[in-house]
Amino acid sequence: MTVRIGMIGPGGMGRAHIDRIHTVIAGGRVTGVSDVVTENAAKVAESIGGRVYETSTALIGDPNIDAVMICSYGPAHKDDVIAAVKAGKPVFCEKPLTPTSGEALEIMEVEQAGGRKLVTVGFMRRFDESYRQMKAILDSGEIGETLIVHNRHRNPTVPAHYTWDMAINDTGIHEVDTMRWLLGEEIVAVRVDKPKKTSHRFEHLQDPLILIMETQSGVWIDDEIFVNNQHSYDIQCEAVAETGTIRLSDQHKIERTGTLGRHNALTMDHNQRFGGAFVTEVQEWIDAVARGEHTGSTSWDGYAAACVCDAGVKALTEDGVVPVRMIDKPQFYA
Amino acid sequence: MTVRIGMIGPGGMGRAHIDRIHTVIAGGRVTGVSDVVTENAAKVAESIGGRVYETSTALIGDPNIDAVMICSYGPAHKDDVIAAVKAGKPVFCEKPLTPTSGEALEIMEVEQAGGRKLVTVGFMRRFDESYRQMKAILDSGEIGETLIVHNRHRNPTVPAHYTWDMAINDTGIHEVDTMRWLLGEEIVAVRVDKPKKTSHRFEHLQDPLILIMETQSGVWIDDEIFVNNQHSYDIQCEAVAETGTIRLSDQHKIERTGTLGRHNALTMDHNQRFGGAFVTEVQEWIDAVARGEHTGSTSWDGYAAACVCDAGVKALTEDGVVPVRMIDKPQFYA
Amino acid sequence: MTVRIGMIGPGGMGRAHIDRIHTVIAGGRVTGVSDVVTENAAKVAESIGGRVYETSTALIGDPNIDAVMICSYGPAHKDDVIAAVKAGKPVFCEKPLTPTSGEALEIMEVEQAGGRKLVTVGFMRRFDESYRQMKAILDSGEIGETLIVHNRHRNPTVPAHYTWDMAINDTGIHEVDTMRWLLGEEIVAVRVDKPKKTSHRFEHLQDPLILIMETQSGVWIDDEIFVNNQHSYDIQCEAVAETGTIRLSDQHKIERTGTLGRHNALTMDHNQRFGGAFVTEVQEWIDAVARGEHTGSTSWDGYAAACVCDAGVKALTEDGVVPVRMIDKPQFYA
Amino acid sequence: MTVRIGMIGPGGMGRAHIDRIHTVIAGGRVTGVSDVVTENAAKVAESIGGRVYETSTALIGDPNIDAVMICSYGPAHKDDVIAAVKAGKPVFCEKPLTPTSGEALEIMEVEQAGGRKLVTVGFMRRFDESYRQMKAILDSGEIGETLIVHNRHRNPTVPAHYTWDMAINDTGIHEVDTMRWLLGEEIVAVRVDKPKKTSHRFEHLQDPLILIMETQSGVWIDDEIFVNNQHSYDIQCEAVAETGTIRLSDQHKIERTGTLGRHNALTMDHNQRFGGAFVTEVQEWIDAVARGEHTGSTSWDGYAAACVCDAGVKALTEDGVVPVRMIDKPQFYA
Repeated sequence: MTVRIGMIGPGGMGRAHIDRIHTVIAGGRVTGVSDVVTENAAKVAESIGGRVYETSTALIGDPNIDAVMICSYGPAHKDDVIAAVKAGKPVFCEKPLTPTSGEALEIMEVEQAGGRKLVTVGFMRRFDESYRQMKAILDSGEIGETLIVHNRHRNPTVPAHYTWDMAINDTGIHEVDTMRWLLGEEIVAVRVDKPKKTSHRFEHLQDPLILIMETQSGVWIDDEIFVNNQHSYDIQCEAVAETGTIRLSDQHKIERTGTLGRHNALTMDHNQRFGGAFVTEVQEWIDAVARGEHTGSTSWDGYAAACVCDAGVKALTEDGVVPVRMIDKPQFYA
Repeated sequence: MTVRIGMIGPGGMGRAHIDRIHTVIAGGRVTGVSDVVTENAAKVAESIGGRVYETSTALIGDPNIDAVMICSYGPAHKDDVIAAVKAGKPVFCEKPLTPTSGEALEIMEVEQAGGRKLVTVGFMRRFDESYRQMKAILDSGEIGETLIVHNRHRNPTVPAHYTWDMAINDTGIHEVDTMRWLLGEEIVAVRVDKPKKTSHRFEHLQDPLILIMETQSGVWIDDEIFVNNQHSYDIQCEAVAETGTIRLSDQHKIERTGTLGRHNALTMDHNQRFGGAFVTEVQEWIDAVARGEHTGSTSWDGYAAACVCDAGVKALTEDGVVPVRMIDKPQFYA
Repeated sequence: MTVRIGMIGPGGMGRAHIDRIHTVIAGGRVTGVSDVVTENAAKVAESIGGRVYETSTALIGDPNIDAVMICSYGPAHKDDVIAAVKAGKPVFCEKPLTPTSGEALEIMEVEQAGGRKLVTVGFMRRFDESYRQMKAILDSGEIGETLIVHNRHRNPTVPAHYTWDMAINDTGIHEVDTMRWLLGEEIVAVRVDKPKKTSHRFEHLQDPLILIMETQSGVWIDDEIFVNNQHSYDIQCEAVAETGTIRLSDQHKIERTGTLGRHNALTMDHNQRFGGAFVTEVQEWIDAVARGEHTGSTSWDGYAAACVCDAGVKALTEDGVVPVRMIDKPQFYA
Repeated sequence: MTVRIGMIGPGGMGRAHIDRIHTVIAGGRVTGVSDVVTENAAKVAESIGGRVYETSTALIGDPNIDAVMICSYGPAHKDDVIAAVKAGKPVFCEKPLTPTSGEALEIMEVEQAGGRKLVTVGFMRRFDESYRQMKAILDSGEIGETLIVHNRHRNPTVPAHYTWDMAINDTGIHEVDTMRWLLGEEIVAVRVDKPKKTSHRFEHLQDPLILIMETQSGVWIDDEIFVNNQHSYDIQCEAVAETGTIRLSDQHKIERTGTLGRHNALTMDHNQRFGGAFVTEVQEWIDAVARGEHTGSTSWDGYAAACVCDAGVKALTEDGVVPVRMIDKPQFYA
């Protein structure tokens, strides 16, 4: 009855998922671990009383493993996802599904050939209660069509190895997926505007950036990406519809008054802000696996996000609008 | 490894706990059920693939039951709690522990004789993230001593069988426990003030009420209890300390603008407002059971709450301040 | 066409009124000044090109003075107010009208004998936009009868000469008048509760205090008076009616995010918080004078506030409820 | 001592200014009126006991008129402003100063020839307390350089004669001036993005629009212009600086709870939102006139706003960025 999960590539995110599954989630257990560094896998496996596998292939192939979580380095995703799909096992793959859209396309082909949606991509915001309340109201139609969505994606700081394209591929990708899901349509064009740079940046970075996106029906989306704001992980979203607007609230639990004035603590990273969303995401995935169903982002979603990011990276160095190039959506993912 | 839980008296609250344990909580499973109406127990047991017991005594006595949850009618609590304690099994009992302080005293005596804290009372607010943040700051001492706490406990409406004393014993009891926990000291005196009555009341009810409490060190606490406000389940708490204040925020996830102005949905019942707290409460209890430890409110807390409520009910019909009568806290519960 | 105003006793408040009248208010001018210290009067008069009077009696008697503002020390109010009334001149008297209710009664008798309402008492909150919006909704009846009002009156600090009774006579008196006005009925009983004392107090002060009041129809009012909170002038008011509540908002103009979190500046004194109300108060008084009408609090309001404060001061040293003793409201003030 | 003001072209805005000057502002009086429809001027003049002039030239030339307010139709502004400047009289001209930048240039030339700044343009937001608080903090440098400013300019609805270019020339012009003032630098380029159109629009309108502006130093500014949002006049502004952000608060005075949830009234037009700013604007202008000084926006500001709007209107029908063309700022206006 318990879903037996094999974990591939447990770094910080993978260990956090293991911890969630074992302490605050019902119905699952991580029973096997593999890693390119087998010693790492062994250490993790020992801590949870699980089995260590020499290779991800061996883990995927073990009939005692019901489902697979992939938290390894992005370039390693494709082969393991495809192996899991070929083995007929549900696979939860951390975002991005693949670093390039071409690899995602390969995954989709294998998955379609198998005839069953098995791939879930780890876009956790779809499981956040505040975004879900926003989507429910937009979907209800009670405030008409959505026309504009304003987003802010701010981080206190990023490490020195953070490169320019990561503002799109690692940071903006969250809004790319969330907007596609929120609006239920594809993004067809992107542009990047470059405001005055913060002096609290690394010289190589243009920070902040404004990523502007347009959907099929013409919804205009902005995303202020500012990854060295020095103070907080600040995620904002406001949807402007024909007869009303909805924005995420500040999400704070308490309000203080004192010598600082009226003040509230802010979140400092994605675990603080989206801790609940991560739990819901994995819980719903385990539930779906147990029922033999699919949940969350599909490999189509992973592919589409990669296509938008490809255009976004191109827009970093090109003036004007860059069209998003993607195949027509296969009926399989409709 | 999974904690096997026996559920006694599954009404609405009990079934909600079962649902949580089976769908969003790690490490536990309800494997047995009993009820004064055996048909009810049988129905619940069947739905979860559990065993039905003819009597609560049989359930408690079964060595395949590791821990007991009691969600039956208040007057039935004492005997089952005592039986569980005598059997050496951890027992989670919904609030109130017992309708009278005398019965709670009996439980404490048996528990002390057994030499181990086994009883947890279901005061869920101690597990609410917003109250916990408030307590952490007060405990840190950074804003000095707490001097005053203002509470509001508002419900949209109550059923016709809701009697006057329930405003204290069922409603105000939440603030009684939460204040004791938040401040870490006992309530020594209470008074009830009676504002103008709402016309949306039952004739037999004085609604709203103001319950005023004083702690050992002199903290002044008010609790506006208004159970027919016609619009929302509105729980507020503001602590006033020497150099700052903290209040619970509105807890809404989104903010809307439209023809109604700027507006946010309010919670309508305790499940909406404290859904997360219920989950944390039961998760932490199961974790503690698995580790052989105690968590949450003790039977002393259940006793103390009952003593304060006794004084509160007396204050309903007496002018002025009513002292709280309770025994000295046994070293066992220190 | 310009109302020529004589100012008696220009201290800080009086000079602030003069400044308002000359810089941001239409239709009036301070043309005469008197003070117990004639040098002070001379200095103020010179700064505004006005005339200095040796005595307040001379000022009041000058036919070139249309109306009188009294900002002198409380015990000096009565004689000057009566002189102005006898001279048939509108008089604006800073709160409190008189230190004792008996003196206020004398004023009322003279005013009634004169047959015309001439006295306005400087309770500025009646002119604050936020309180006015609250009152408009309560008066509309759309949320039913008001049942409870919660008030907070917090100051950063008070000077060493601030005595215990001033918490009632100087601080709480604002809520006394505001509540009478907001609810349109008299306060009939008061009580004072004494929370744990702040250590940031003068030894002679019981700070904070809770002033509890009851109106004729049974509305229950609390007022947390905390005059050494170390951080802000924080005025709060929440009215609880049968089907809704209204509270004053935080009144801040901007919201900041930074290393302090989300934070807003707080007001530090009554000029910051009620600067707009002072302007409106004096503007409306000058307008009324020009039209030959009365505006704002009457001498009855000054008397009633004094009666409630008398009971409040008594309640400082008495246990339990102290009834407010006042005469029946004369038809003249209906 | 009272500033005698001549009003040219009193429509709704002009009559509102007259009303302010006579009822809530110190130091000024409208003593003369002219209008292209003399009957209209006569009616207004009679209501205030002022003199009616057959022509604006006659009004400007009367030595009993100290200063001039122009509230006529935009195309009529230039000649009257120039006449007032030539007569050496301070002139307050409602925005826009002139419909085209070329006419503003003519005004500037005459004004410079006269050697004295006499023209004030009626951009009232510079006098709004919330914008002023924002500017004070940005100017202090405490949160570093400003990098981005997000604006929203939303109206419930516009009349049928509202044309496309008015979204720039009548609506967006407010943010154009406010941003120039807030940041203390010129706007050098603009672009217009066109989101999905609301169905609650007139067919001829593209509504909403996104106006994107760039300043000399590279600050990136957006302005969502949505003039048929069906619910409120909603002005928002958030400045993103290197180490902090500031946004205008919601400005509501009270907060309500009821069957609609937690809700606050919104403003429905610019008089509600900026009523206080209009008063301050005119008060400060009259004060400056009395002191022989200049205050508020200059004719350079009027010119610069016109230049940005010219580019904005061009951007309505052109793809991509349109540079703003303007002369170098004359030393006279530095």
